[in-house]
Amino acid sequence: MSEAHDAVDIIRAKRDGTGLADAQIDWVIDAYTRGAVAEEQMSALAMAILLNGMTRAEISRWTAAMIASGERMDFSALSRPTADKHSTGGVGDKITLPLAPLVAAFGVAVPQLSGRGLGHTGGTLDKLEAVPGWRADLSNAAMMRQLGEVGAVICAAGSGLAPADKKLYALRDVTGTVEAVPLIASSIMSKKIAEGTGALMLDVKVGSGAFMKTREDATELARTMVDLGTDAGVSTVALLTDMSTPLGRTAGNALEVRESVEVLAGGGPEDVVELTVALAHEMLAAAGREVARDEVAAALGDGRAMDVWRRMIAAQGGDPDAALPVAREREVLTAEADGVLTAMDAFAVGVAAWRLGAGRARKEDPVQAGAGVELHAVVGEPVRAGQPLLTLHTDTPERFARAREALAGAWSIGDQAPARRTVVLDRISAEG
Amino acid sequence: MSEAHDAVDIIRAKRDGTGLADAQIDWVIDAYTRGAVAEEQMSALAMAILLNGMTRAEISRWTAAMIASGERMDFSALSRPTADKHSTGGVGDKITLPLAPLVAAFGVAVPQLSGRGLGHTGGTLDKLEAVPGWRADLSNAAMMRQLGEVGAVICAAGSGLAPADKKLYALRDVTGTVEAVPLIASSIMSKKIAEGTGALMLDVKVGSGAFMKTREDATELARTMVDLGTDAGVSTVALLTDMSTPLGRTAGNALEVRESVEVLAGGGPEDVVELTVALAHEMLAAAGREVARDEVAAALGDGRAMDVWRRMIAAQGGDPDAALPVAREREVLTAEADGVLTAMDAFAVGVAAWRLGAGRARKEDPVQAGAGVELHAVVGEPVRAGQPLLTLHTDTPERFARAREALAGAWSIGDQAPARRTVVLDRISAEG
Repeated sequence: MSEAHDAVDIIRAKRDGTGLADAQIDWVIDAYTRGAVAEEQMSALAMAILLNGMTRAEISRWTAAMIASGERMDFSALSRPTADKHSTGGVGDKITLPLAPLVAAFGVAVPQLSGRGLGHTGGTLDKLEAVPGWRADLSNAAMMRQLGEVGAVICAAGSGLAPADKKLYALRDVTGTVEAVPLIASSIMSKKIAEGTGALMLDVKVGSGAFMKTREDATELARTMVDLGTDAGVSTVALLTDMSTPLGRTAGNALEVRESVEVLAGGGPEDVVELTVALAHEMLAAAGREVARDEVAAALGDGRAMDVWRRMIAAQGGDPDAALPVAREREVLTAEADGVLTAMDAFAVGVAAWRLGAGRARKEDPVQAGAGVELHAVVGEPVRAGQPLLTLHTDTPERFARAREALAGAWSIGDQAPARRTVVLDRISAEG
Repeated sequence: MSEAHDAVDIIRAKRDGTGLADAQIDWVIDAYTRGAVAEEQMSALAMAILLNGMTRAEISRWTAAMIASGERMDFSALSRPTADKHSTGGVGDKITLPLAPLVAAFGVAVPQLSGRGLGHTGGTLDKLEAVPGWRADLSNAAMMRQLGEVGAVICAAGSGLAPADKKLYALRDVTGTVEAVPLIASSIMSKKIAEGTGALMLDVKVGSGAFMKTREDATELARTMVDLGTDAGVSTVALLTDMSTPLGRTAGNALEVRESVEVLAGGGPEDVVELTVALAHEMLAAAGREVARDEVAAALGDGRAMDVWRRMIAAQGGDPDAALPVAREREVLTAEADGVLTAMDAFAVGVAAWRLGAGRARKEDPVQAGAGVELHAVVGEPVRAGQPLLTLHTDTPERFARAREALAGAWSIGDQAPARRTVVLDRISAEG
């Protein structure tokens, strides 16, 4: 029987709801990686998966097969436990920057393999590259050394982890098959499991600025990923967190680094501090270190987290004391009435920051370190007619018009203060 | 907005059940034909169509767009009306051979564009190529001339008709998306409508030897195709016909030509005669010639149909008097008990004939003119233990073993005669 024939049998099984056997999954991922299953065959299979779903056993095997397509890392030689975090992406989501040093300050190593941004959500590596001298690319040996010496590293994932996922992700992007929970979950988790972390914290965003717009979809994705991590022996917990409005008061690379440093210095926006502490508390517990929440928060005020941050930046060539880049041009948008800010849409702010130059449309595009959106008021705060509400930053002023378009109708000013915002909406673990 | 982006929007619309706009269908078929929509994008769309279906309006537009991708033929210069027939394919289905001359004998021209076989069902062109000297490939001008002079032509479809369908068919074959009724119907009907026939007869097979295994699926396909033809101004009627057991007593190229000539000489198997007359009666009516069924049948006995057959074969270089090829080797399978033959499975006989060399696995493969299966008894006939039941014919005796395997359990011998077989199961027209 020819290989093409096997591929058709597998596509038909998923199409007709028969379910895929372990050997079929192993074969199709391996054959796709080496080119024996054609792109058009994999895209038909991806669409059948999107429309017919996958069982927990199928997703688990699919993830294992993607891991087996590449190399695995191993942190067992480290003297400390390891914990990593993955966010599904949000606007103003700079949490990784204060979080990694904070967790490392309590003796848990954080090997944070991150990516660059695409579309309206920024990428952690793009943000850190705003720090003069800082480099994202490390060899595996340099990464291990930094983990041992500093305890935290944020760097680019090598291409050796789950190459099947890399190929499949590019295919899904052009075939309308991105939005399949089994494929999203296995894409994220194959890389995280291959990376070899002992504990994994998932920050699943929900709301207009997130990939998952509804609580139901976010819950399904979180549950699927927690199951996958648990099945692979990784201590995995997910928080569902609000992404209806941006996190903090900045969206943009250097702007977010500045805000992260404020948090590491004991200040910064309340929601960023709250989420950073909540995630650090969970990560430490997942890695076997029970630390009281107040004790975690204290490390943001007393310099312990800041100390790790400075060493982490310096270890990758960055100067923690250097001035951050500032955009050449600014434009201010003002409040049109007196009242209370009742809404500031995350998606609109994300698109505006992207259009100002903070993000990229294609993966080859450069980003502007200084570009982005600064918020002078956040939801729940009083505003006066004419006061600055947002400042837009860019090096290329012809971008202002399209950023303003994205922000049309993005906020509301009302008479009554809205209910206090809840950042952490839910918690999902192996136990429930 | 890039073209790739448009393709993703169209895939998403079908995936999410939104429905496709006319302009989206026109664009995607055109862009696919010229290569601007990639194979992997079309395969994702085909899978979404298979799983989510299409409305009558969508299928109609899809078919029109496929017709618009190529040339159209025009028979309006002929002095006679035209009628064509399409069968969805069955085992021993040689009906086109006696049918085309029979219909032409009553003054309706039959431009029968046919194909070669793939898999367990034979192709009309493969059968006629068993006639020494006969050629399938005609220019459009030669085809028109023969239609005017002889009234019937059976030849290969040129590559200019519906090139989008040709490309899409090859893609569906390797991506598990063959079995989508909207795509099957639009594939068949785009070519038949582009061909320009005034009336179209559809023979939709149902049963083990057919593509459609259940009456429900066959009815849906027939209804969809009749609607498409009607919407395009072609007088279209479908008969649902039985394919649980082979048609006639032969499956194989030269074997079926011989049986067809018997029918044209007023003899031949009862079921082949019944179906040929039923289809001719319908085709004539659809073309505006009401002829009594007995009068149609009489033209098989009195030489009128045979006369057209001889001229049709000769016009394409064939010698109607030449001896037909005979396979070099034969093997006989015998009845294992006394009784009545209660079943002879069409699919098993089709696979056996295919394995003996009558059909091809890949479109480049040659076929053996003499290979096939001859049935010495058909369902309902008495048999005696030890009498010949089937004769297998092939030039390559190493094929006997796998043909016998295909026939294991293919027939049953019982005590009681089964109910008389109904060949025509249903009739579907624009009226219902």
